[in-house]
Amino acid sequence: MKTIAIDMDEVIADAIKKFIKLYNRDFNTPLNIELIPGTEVFRNIPEDVNDKWFEYINEPGFFRDMEVMADSQRVIMELQKKYDVYIVSAAMEFRNSLTDKYDWLAEHFPAIDWKHIMFCGNKIIKADVLIDDRTKNFIDFDGRPLLFTSPHNLLITEYERVNNWQEIADKLL
Amino acid sequence: MKTIAIDMDEVIADAIKKFIKLYNRDFNTPLNIELIPGTEVFRNIPEDVNDKWFEYINEPGFFRDMEVMADSQRVIMELQKKYDVYIVSAAMEFRNSLTDKYDWLAEHFPAIDWKHIMFCGNKIIKADVLIDDRTKNFIDFDGRPLLFTSPHNLLITEYERVNNWQEIADKLL
Repeated sequence: MKTIAIDMDEVIADAIKKFIKLYNRDFNTPLNIELIPGTEVFRNIPEDVNDKWFEYINEPGFFRDMEVMADSQRVIMELQKKYDVYIVSAAMEFRNSLTDKYDWLAEHFPAIDWKHIMFCGNKIIKADVLIDDRTKNFIDFDGRPLLFTSPHNLLITEYERVNNWQEIADKLL
Repeated sequence: MKTIAIDMDEVIADAIKKFIKLYNRDFNTPLNIELIPGTEVFRNIPEDVNDKWFEYINEPGFFRDMEVMADSQRVIMELQKKYDVYIVSAAMEFRNSLTDKYDWLAEHFPAIDWKHIMFCGNKIIKADVLIDDRTKNFIDFDGRPLLFTSPHNLLITEYERVNNWQEIADKLL
């Protein structure tokens, strides 16, 4: 059975929407959800509050109540019938994210058992497919990388791209 | 630079000693530290309290104050000069272990940054060497497996064995 590794933030969990929600709550400023293509979300807010992104992301609870990316639950259930599906998240950067991410997965993806979850830094993994929004994770990856579209990666052209979960279904099912 | 992946429990963290300490505290029974070769620690206590192991291991804090395995800090510091060293622990089995293990590593192995820590279930990793006490982690591993001696694996003969951290230094440095 072939193995698929799937990233969390911006692939199955909507981290940008969560940030925008907190930013709007604190600054009462509508932040345009159409971020400038090729930029990180925190580059789209005034420079003097740039570090809000890092402040929010380090808070306990930030990763606990994110919205699930559209169609990801349905498509991953289908993928599990044909592939060995792993969730591989660079959670280790944020200590407080570990339990939040664990609980979030248990709530939204209960069919993914603990053996198929990996929280890491560098993704030194062996898999046939890696679905990720960060190209740095593709550099040492030997399998087929699928770049999941996110505002920050819109200008990248050298990888096979998937814009949403239906496109993943079309390619892999 | 070659990559070494190192397991935590029974390789750098003394989980068995922690269990025995809790068991002795609760039952006031000296448990022989010479466990029967080839057996899991929980098979060395009366059958009716077998599940103490699982009770303890699921408690918050169980993984936070384990003793560091002899010489592991010194040898890992040396290994880091020659290898890309990762800690790879099957922590995902125990939700409450995640933050404990993260904090334990920060305390005892501060030179191992977040990019080099991986908490997982199945170890679908790409590395040149894997030091582990569980042979199940060697089955799909493509590199050189080193079986770190622990009471439960004493009867296993089909893997290259290391009995302590000095032997690892002798082999890899």
